[in-house]
Amino acid sequence: MKNNKLTDSLQLVIFGASGDLSQTKLIPSLYKLFKRGRLPEEFFLLGADHHFENRAEFLRNLSETVREILPETFETALWEKFAKKLNYLQIDFEDEAGYKELSRKLDKKEKSYRSSRQRIYYLATAPGFFPLITEKLDNFDLAGSDGADWPRLVIEKPFGYDLESAVEFNSKIYRVFPEDNIYRIDHYLGKEMIQNILTMRFANMIFEPIWNKNYIDNIQIISTEKQGIKSRGKYYDKSGALRDMIQSHLLQMLALIAMEPPENMATESILQEKIKLLKSLAETPLLNLEDNLVLGQYSKLERPEKYIPGYQEEDKIKPDSSTETFAAVKFNINNLRWRGVPIYLKTGKRLEKKNTKIFIQFKSDFHPSFLDNNEPEANLLIIKVQPREGVSLQFNAKKPGSQNEIVPVFMDFCHKAPRDLQSTPEAYEELLAALIRGDQSLFTHWKEVKNSWLFIDQLREFIDTREIKPEKYLPGSSGPESMTRLVARDHRQWWDDAALEEQEENL
Amino acid sequence: MKNNKLTDSLQLVIFGASGDLSQTKLIPSLYKLFKRGRLPEEFFLLGADHHFENRAEFLRNLSETVREILPETFETALWEKFAKKLNYLQIDFEDEAGYKELSRKLDKKEKSYRSSRQRIYYLATAPGFFPLITEKLDNFDLAGSDGADWPRLVIEKPFGYDLESAVEFNSKIYRVFPEDNIYRIDHYLGKEMIQNILTMRFANMIFEPIWNKNYIDNIQIISTEKQGIKSRGKYYDKSGALRDMIQSHLLQMLALIAMEPPENMATESILQEKIKLLKSLAETPLLNLEDNLVLGQYSKLERPEKYIPGYQEEDKIKPDSSTETFAAVKFNINNLRWRGVPIYLKTGKRLEKKNTKIFIQFKSDFHPSFLDNNEPEANLLIIKVQPREGVSLQFNAKKPGSQNEIVPVFMDFCHKAPRDLQSTPEAYEELLAALIRGDQSLFTHWKEVKNSWLFIDQLREFIDTREIKPEKYLPGSSGPESMTRLVARDHRQWWDDAALEEQEENL
Repeated sequence: MKNNKLTDSLQLVIFGASGDLSQTKLIPSLYKLFKRGRLPEEFFLLGADHHFENRAEFLRNLSETVREILPETFETALWEKFAKKLNYLQIDFEDEAGYKELSRKLDKKEKSYRSSRQRIYYLATAPGFFPLITEKLDNFDLAGSDGADWPRLVIEKPFGYDLESAVEFNSKIYRVFPEDNIYRIDHYLGKEMIQNILTMRFANMIFEPIWNKNYIDNIQIISTEKQGIKSRGKYYDKSGALRDMIQSHLLQMLALIAMEPPENMATESILQEKIKLLKSLAETPLLNLEDNLVLGQYSKLERPEKYIPGYQEEDKIKPDSSTETFAAVKFNINNLRWRGVPIYLKTGKRLEKKNTKIFIQFKSDFHPSFLDNNEPEANLLIIKVQPREGVSLQFNAKKPGSQNEIVPVFMDFCHKAPRDLQSTPEAYEELLAALIRGDQSLFTHWKEVKNSWLFIDQLREFIDTREIKPEKYLPGSSGPESMTRLVARDHRQWWDDAALEEQEENL
Repeated sequence: MKNNKLTDSLQLVIFGASGDLSQTKLIPSLYKLFKRGRLPEEFFLLGADHHFENRAEFLRNLSETVREILPETFETALWEKFAKKLNYLQIDFEDEAGYKELSRKLDKKEKSYRSSRQRIYYLATAPGFFPLITEKLDNFDLAGSDGADWPRLVIEKPFGYDLESAVEFNSKIYRVFPEDNIYRIDHYLGKEMIQNILTMRFANMIFEPIWNKNYIDNIQIISTEKQGIKSRGKYYDKSGALRDMIQSHLLQMLALIAMEPPENMATESILQEKIKLLKSLAETPLLNLEDNLVLGQYSKLERPEKYIPGYQEEDKIKPDSSTETFAAVKFNINNLRWRGVPIYLKTGKRLEKKNTKIFIQFKSDFHPSFLDNNEPEANLLIIKVQPREGVSLQFNAKKPGSQNEIVPVFMDFCHKAPRDLQSTPEAYEELLAALIRGDQSLFTHWKEVKNSWLFIDQLREFIDTREIKPEKYLPGSSGPESMTRLVARDHRQWWDDAALEEQEENL
């Protein structure tokens, strides 16, 4: 939040502008920001890629895609106006000539600028190209410090494969860009409810006092997907669920949920607390992993009416691959606030439904009279991240008309919610707006990446040493069988939707 | 909750069976209990009054009224079945012959009983008749102890006019019925959300730990009515808002909200804590009443399109009456849990709308960074008693799409509430069911009545000594002007609907 003023002039270079991310997320989001008047007055986008030959081809393809993706917000006249700000350069990322041309194009445009040169390089390419492109940018004096925190470099995960590779990767980037200029995207941080966590925690007297081990029984962060690995086989088979989801999105959510109160709400202060939390995770030995870690891999589903290939049959996956497509892990945070409160993370592909939620389960330390015959359900605070965003609270009330029967009831943002869902900005829109105004609070710092890898490396080491193979589970199921034991051993349950629906049916 | 078994046989005698209360509340509620199978197998109702001449006339009138009141639940065939259980006796409450006949009728019916005689006498007459009727019941051996807590006597408020008259009144009843057999109706205690307060407080980890002076800023109990005094002028002019509403309903709600945890949820344990709370109120001197008490009286409204008479013009009201139709009072509870937390009670007639709600306002002790530029709204827990019943929670969230703007959002029971509103039993239905099963938890004990009067007497003494006259206010307004000062002096506001709606509009 250090710089809320829109910069006057900006050139955004997207490497990999013809790729999926650019065409379906980045440029549609920029168009929406343009529509809302949230782009600088002098804004220019330069798409750099090898795929399309020229600007006309690039634009033709792009306008079709955007029209498809934003059927309701696409307006031809406005798009034409926006398209005037888009340029294209066919470039081979390894060929120096391209960078020379790039430099020329950027310089030319900046001659007309009112302010000094302000550039963002967005690497929307395969991560293998990141060190190469940054090196070339340096060679052609494209990355030289332009004052303040310009130029900015944006990179998408994965930031390495483990701590060692991440350090190596990062050191290459660091040769060209200082940390302050690097924006590491974790698109979960752009999601409305994730940004809401700190407000929820620290601007509400009803939550803050009970946000600790005295009142909270356990925390569950669950992110499931219905789809398989799609066309990402090459990347995914080297990665797996721990690296792909837990290292990034789930640990980031946990950091916001569990961190100590920051000195203030400035990016640096929040970052400091997140790092402190992740560092403590990284430095606490993980115990009893034979009980507390469950890995799974989806098998094939053969039904008369449909066939879903198993993970090992997917494109670019080794037939004997033991990469996990599901991971559940239980651990503790060893600090004063959370000691003894189990944290359960769960993520997987090809499960029942796409669903990301955070469950804060409070202790059931009720008045003994209510425990006698009823065993009321635990209080739950549910932060819904996707697909629907919102907050729910489950608490206990007397069943209407009964004498003293207790039933859980749900409170929800309902029609009184301040904005309807449609107008909630998408994650990438939020992230790009933050990027343009130089707000790093929605991006991941190297120290967060480093400590997250240290945590994951502990798990990987255990898996590799014991040669643990993932358990098979059926597509559309809730995951491998052992995941139930992981919580049942503690006399707890996963707060997936099935458990909640069952409760609601019992009302 | 001491006796949840339905008794086998029961005769319910309603004195004043042709009056408004009987015809529009008691008997319709009994019919609904009958429909739900919640009446004893051998149930007989004997209506005793002077108005109708015979059973046929009584029933004819009654069935018309019930059909009108319960358009959706009235079924002719079922009503005929129910009507077989209804008898009528024309009686002059002062004439001994009537009681002789009453005794004969009851005895005759009980000859066919399987169990011993079990009777309830419900005094739905003007309170002036209570001592007379109980004396006569005694004279004719109708009130003699029939074992256990039979027969039962039900009386409606007012239970006196001040402590002295209440003691006198009560001693007359006590000559005939012991406390255990007396059921004092406060129909607010039959309301679903009032019964829910203890479950909310003691079966929820999210509320119990913050239910004290450390987290709660103030408590407001507000009960407003749109209507005037209707035909109750004779009673009301001697009573006024303090005696009519605060002595009973508002102090009862406060007792449930503020009492300490009971040993268990048995009637006696809950009662003990309620009495403790009311006793502490009664024994704590009320300070600064010149600032902390506001009385009002509605004036007339003269508009071209309508005319609403002022209180002093109402039927049976003295033209110079200084009876208050509005009262607001601020005080503290002098115990460890609540010391320093102001309690605000407010009630009045001819106000904007009919509305009873309890507001728990939490402290705004947020993270200082959120206080800098935002001044977020306080967290509020709203217990809605009537006309709609439910629970709302107002807390703070980030405004979607904004960087760090904070807005209050509302959570509500919404479509996920366990039962729709229609099926929530009405207050009298709950009270009659409790009466039949001998559950006194929904009725008021003499010690509660006594301590409530002690509290009210403090206020009345101040008013009488200072000869304080009520301030005029217009029908349809929110009350007299001074009520705003009462809270504004503390830099607080009344959480009436206007304040909440304003907040919602700002979203």
